[in-house]
Amino acid sequence: MSRLSEFVYTRRVSYADTDQMGVVHHAAYVVYFEEARLAYLREAGLPYRELEERGVFLPVVELRVRYRRPARLEDLLHIRLRVADLHRHAFTLAYAIHREDTLLVEGWTKLAAMNREGRLIRLPEDLVALLSPAPNGKPADS
Amino acid sequence: MSRLSEFVYTRRVSYADTDQMGVVHHAAYVVYFEEARLAYLREAGLPYRELEERGVFLPVVELRVRYRRPARLEDLLHIRLRVADLHRHAFTLAYAIHREDTLLVEGWTKLAAMNREGRLIRLPEDLVALLSPAPNGKPADS
Amino acid sequence: MSRLSEFVYTRRVSYADTDQMGVVHHAAYVVYFEEARLAYLREAGLPYRELEERGVFLPVVELRVRYRRPARLEDLLHIRLRVADLHRHAFTLAYAIHREDTLLVEGWTKLAAMNREGRLIRLPEDLVALLSPAPNGKPADS
Amino acid sequence: MSRLSEFVYTRRVSYADTDQMGVVHHAAYVVYFEEARLAYLREAGLPYRELEERGVFLPVVELRVRYRRPARLEDLLHIRLRVADLHRHAFTLAYAIHREDTLLVEGWTKLAAMNREGRLIRLPEDLVALLSPAPNGKPADS
Repeated sequence: MSRLSEFVYTRRVSYADTDQMGVVHHAAYVVYFEEARLAYLREAGLPYRELEERGVFLPVVELRVRYRRPARLEDLLHIRLRVADLHRHAFTLAYAIHREDTLLVEGWTKLAAMNREGRLIRLPEDLVALLSPAPNGKPADS
Repeated sequence: MSRLSEFVYTRRVSYADTDQMGVVHHAAYVVYFEEARLAYLREAGLPYRELEERGVFLPVVELRVRYRRPARLEDLLHIRLRVADLHRHAFTLAYAIHREDTLLVEGWTKLAAMNREGRLIRLPEDLVALLSPAPNGKPADS
Repeated sequence: MSRLSEFVYTRRVSYADTDQMGVVHHAAYVVYFEEARLAYLREAGLPYRELEERGVFLPVVELRVRYRRPARLEDLLHIRLRVADLHRHAFTLAYAIHREDTLLVEGWTKLAAMNREGRLIRLPEDLVALLSPAPNGKPADS
Repeated sequence: MSRLSEFVYTRRVSYADTDQMGVVHHAAYVVYFEEARLAYLREAGLPYRELEERGVFLPVVELRVRYRRPARLEDLLHIRLRVADLHRHAFTLAYAIHREDTLLVEGWTKLAAMNREGRLIRLPEDLVALLSPAPNGKPADS
């Protein structure tokens, strides 16, 4: 497991994600954020699938998105992700989606840690370690 | 619980279901079939949610769709459903989607009965009764 | 065309909207908001499809969602919608999703008016009339 | 542009694609087929986006899927695609989705060539060349 100060997930726009405006439907970016989030955990050595198998669920409890410019079919999108906030039972990730150098969409998701019954629990230690800034205040992997 | 010889589910096309061709994306009809299926079971007094709570799962094991004409945003669709085939562990439903009198899409789904572990099981008796033709060979609810 | 001070759209949770947490996936509510929005315009006599035919597009430029409690398969959801803010080129709608008396999800979408080329335009007069509070300060339809 | 006798597209299962059965929802594979199809055209030098810009649309007119085993969250799927049939106005692609050596899902889509008005047209020559078997009867790229 290793901490990542910043992470970039790349994905191409699917046809199913377009709508009749000829651009990506606004709900599709919410899924792109989620894909980036799971890729981040997976690459850091803590796959979300294993977290759920251990009884740790991370539902989204808050979501914000700002749509600046539309993405189009087959665009190659770069979804940049960083930890914006970290609490005992929840954390916030911030996302920025670019096509080359153009910022298209920004967003934030607050995720809470819950058990199988839907009760709030403490974030597990290995996840906290992953999400924490490095001791010297610099990003963990620098 | 009551048998229904034929069932019609009505639903309006959502914006998210359109794609950049300006029509409903072909995968959306698969969800419309599913919604019709669940509405049919629910109205017949055997909600699918309760079937799953009893440990009976009905995954789709085969799917066919023929797309004749496109549906468009806000079209009011009528999804007609009938039982096409009934076996010990599986059954087939046939669907026809109309906008007014125009046939847009036809399809079939074969559904198998499985337990929580994904093993084939017999269809439960109440579901068989629901799906069976009436004793007199005429539709059950006629 | 008639102004609606508040509007409630009802829809049942589809199977495709659930995820492996056993609840409705967080992106599905974004589509429920959109469906409520189009139903509102349609019932008020100004269908969104006709707005687009006239060259008026209303893309979402900002989205916020707070997830309080999960919705489940076949739940009957009531999506309440009201106009929260109205400007020259944009307006904000607020949504609250209930299952019976329980508040599940709240959200806001800011929608901008654009032409076919994606340039900001003034909201058309009939849409402004629809979205405006009544002259006497009371809701328009009271 | 180069002919590909067989093409494999790789994609990981997204959380949004799972349903409450704990597996990938059956409609999601229809989108995986489509993603494979567009990747195939793109890698062969004939991006679908450019076809549409030239006024050539390839809607799905028939779809078949057989679901053999379920895919699960974060599974790495290999979608193998080959040309199964080629006619003047339409062609059929066959798909097989594997997780490692296990066959999960098979399918076929028949795609028709249409112009912007939705009328059948001949497949454009460069697309026919791409989809045709090599003159010697062996796959084109062998």
